[in-house]
Amino acid sequence: MILSKTKQRYIEQLKEFLSIPSISADSRFSKEVERAAHWVKKTLIDSGCTQVKVYPTEGHPIVFGSRIIDPKLPTVMVYGHYDVQPPDPLDQWETEPFKPIIKKTKIHPQGALFARGACDDKGQLMIHVKAFEELVNQDNLNCNVSFLIEGEEEVGSNHLEQFLKEYKQELASDVVLISDTAIISNSQPSITSGLRGLCYFEVKVKGSSIDLHSGVYGGAVPNPLTVLCELMAKLHDRNRKINIPGFYDDVILIDEESKAEINKEILDLQEFKDSIGIKNIMGEKDYTTVERKSIRPALDINGIYGGYTLEGTKTVIPSEATAKVSMRLVPNQNWKKISSLFSNHIKKLAPDSVSVSVKIFQGGNPYLVSKEHIGFKAAHSAYSDSFGISPITTRGGGSIPIVSNIEEILGAKSILMGFGLDSDAIHSPNEHFGLFNFFKGIETVKQFYSHYAQLTTP
Amino acid sequence: MILSKTKQRYIEQLKEFLSIPSISADSRFSKEVERAAHWVKKTLIDSGCTQVKVYPTEGHPIVFGSRIIDPKLPTVMVYGHYDVQPPDPLDQWETEPFKPIIKKTKIHPQGALFARGACDDKGQLMIHVKAFEELVNQDNLNCNVSFLIEGEEEVGSNHLEQFLKEYKQELASDVVLISDTAIISNSQPSITSGLRGLCYFEVKVKGSSIDLHSGVYGGAVPNPLTVLCELMAKLHDRNRKINIPGFYDDVILIDEESKAEINKEILDLQEFKDSIGIKNIMGEKDYTTVERKSIRPALDINGIYGGYTLEGTKTVIPSEATAKVSMRLVPNQNWKKISSLFSNHIKKLAPDSVSVSVKIFQGGNPYLVSKEHIGFKAAHSAYSDSFGISPITTRGGGSIPIVSNIEEILGAKSILMGFGLDSDAIHSPNEHFGLFNFFKGIETVKQFYSHYAQLTTP
Repeated sequence: MILSKTKQRYIEQLKEFLSIPSISADSRFSKEVERAAHWVKKTLIDSGCTQVKVYPTEGHPIVFGSRIIDPKLPTVMVYGHYDVQPPDPLDQWETEPFKPIIKKTKIHPQGALFARGACDDKGQLMIHVKAFEELVNQDNLNCNVSFLIEGEEEVGSNHLEQFLKEYKQELASDVVLISDTAIISNSQPSITSGLRGLCYFEVKVKGSSIDLHSGVYGGAVPNPLTVLCELMAKLHDRNRKINIPGFYDDVILIDEESKAEINKEILDLQEFKDSIGIKNIMGEKDYTTVERKSIRPALDINGIYGGYTLEGTKTVIPSEATAKVSMRLVPNQNWKKISSLFSNHIKKLAPDSVSVSVKIFQGGNPYLVSKEHIGFKAAHSAYSDSFGISPITTRGGGSIPIVSNIEEILGAKSILMGFGLDSDAIHSPNEHFGLFNFFKGIETVKQFYSHYAQLTTP
Repeated sequence: MILSKTKQRYIEQLKEFLSIPSISADSRFSKEVERAAHWVKKTLIDSGCTQVKVYPTEGHPIVFGSRIIDPKLPTVMVYGHYDVQPPDPLDQWETEPFKPIIKKTKIHPQGALFARGACDDKGQLMIHVKAFEELVNQDNLNCNVSFLIEGEEEVGSNHLEQFLKEYKQELASDVVLISDTAIISNSQPSITSGLRGLCYFEVKVKGSSIDLHSGVYGGAVPNPLTVLCELMAKLHDRNRKINIPGFYDDVILIDEESKAEINKEILDLQEFKDSIGIKNIMGEKDYTTVERKSIRPALDINGIYGGYTLEGTKTVIPSEATAKVSMRLVPNQNWKKISSLFSNHIKKLAPDSVSVSVKIFQGGNPYLVSKEHIGFKAAHSAYSDSFGISPITTRGGGSIPIVSNIEEILGAKSILMGFGLDSDAIHSPNEHFGLFNFFKGIETVKQFYSHYAQLTTP
């Protein structure tokens, strides 16, 4: 593959970024995470930002930079993150996770960069930096641009909410661009118009004060594992709807047009089942698989433990049992309200022979942007121009809690302009990012600015 | 407390036995299990057995020893086990499980030995060894005695059945004595006339071939943990009867007289609840607590594991989930028949989206001995003599699967002369055995031989 000198330079720069093991979850790498923050600062300055600062937090630093060309013009803020997931299991990587290398694949015949963070999110973040740099250099920048780049996205963005509140004025913007999602394929672009929210719990059932012998006591005393299973089993009805009174009260039913749009994403069921090795799908009655994993809420048990779990047998009635349970929420559910519904319901269901406690971990609200939003329209036109085909509007099943925080605190909508593919193995060994996607991304983002300027000019 | 030199010696010897961590379930301790077998061999020789041999099996060894004083006299065989349950959870032990120590308690004002295996079964086994030793030394032994001591009781006695078949001749005996059960209290002895049977399973539910992200897939794919909970929840009905078709078909309803005898065991419900720290009892409708834990079958989940079980949160749909499940059976249920009913039922209940496998670990049939049996009568008189009060006939909730094997293969009934207390925390942290019980046991067993000789002399 022959690349222009410019493209070659972009790739070398991204490789340099990818060589920094900025693993936010592992404290042994804090220095590297900090080094990545300063690398971002320098790169933003080089690309044309006039103000750039690294803000320390109690966790990893936040980098904020901007180029304000005219305070009267709209401001586009790019959000991204410079931290990455831990690379383990290391033995499943074909190349070293922090030594980026280009390899061709079936899906990426023009080559893809293999490295931890290639797609999530260093590669996608660099799309915005390079698009901005080109516009600056070509003297084509027609609005103010800022960059909010954090280092804790992979560990829950714990210090970003406070930062948003503290620097609300400085961060004021008209629209936020985020490239941290995927498109359907390189021949069918898509824009994620919504994300599910999240709430996460730990449910603990306590029976006796000590573990009991199941022969001596079995049949006469509460078994916390049995009670826990019975509680968990009551959380879905026979149609696999979530069986918590009031749970669906705030769910906005999607209109037929949007429903049809979402189902344009062609999902070959056999291919879907084969890809994850399941015998059959399973989900809420009267909804398609695409709908079930995007516009409908879900409740999953993420972990259970209790009793004897080692080799062989032990005839014990454990004194307690614990389940980790989480829910994906959809517009207009509120995670705090749902948390309280769940917590009260579980306690109400519990028999009088046991104690049940519910610990609420952090949560985030679902997110939705209208197709009528100027930012969404600009993005739609941008994808159409650069890919030569109209993008499909999808809804993401995952959660980016910070998106609803940005809306609540800054009052700005985020446009989810993803350029990765689901097959890029983010969070897994051999993560990669297609060179086609990288350069097509730069082209699309530049188109975005052009359409956005047109739409915002009176 | 002042002990005679002899008593002190007995305790030191028992402490030595208890110091060997003969945990049969954990392969890391195989050497210790073997060491315990050889300790038993040496002790039997020292106590007066003339023939003792350690028989290797594919699992842990079996020790068999005997003193045949006259082939024409009846033979009493003592069955016991030198293996112990795993001590976990270790952090709930107040002293080290394999460093035996004497402490006084409210129930044991004369002191109790705290160690894993103190009551189950090393302490109770040593009662027989010491009673035998005293009779030999006092030249009072009036029948043949043999000892069958295995090392796999806590893991299902997997190789004992084969051993019984292979050495049927050598093991021939008129009655078998087993001390592996409890008496009601130190002021109210009891004899266990029946035991519940046992079957133990591992149920594994498999969904996808890899762990999945609960945001991307949640709501659209089977969650093995959810499915497992739903399967487990279907195993009891609303009256807390076991909900497996055909499960109760062979259960013999107990007659009114025996029922009245069993309920003579006065159970103060508040005291019962307090003793194990439960908020309330829970069990099958229309049965008393005493009945529920002795003459009625029970189904318990002994362990569950799957998904993320560490600190904090992980949004994962695990690829599989596992439960350990066991049942207590009553006369005339057959464990093999029940195992097949359970296995078929679970597979039938499972949705088509998952694979469910059921591993059958071990089992044993329930057991019952008549009050008219000579061995039972001798034991009854022995307890009356040594405790000064007539023993109550109870039914045990636990299982000693080998008891029904001994009956089936050797044609001998077992007399369950227990000396432990339910509060001795067998299979739990801080297991202990009262010194009163230990020495009263030796006295009672000696009385047994005396009454048995009288009853068997024409």
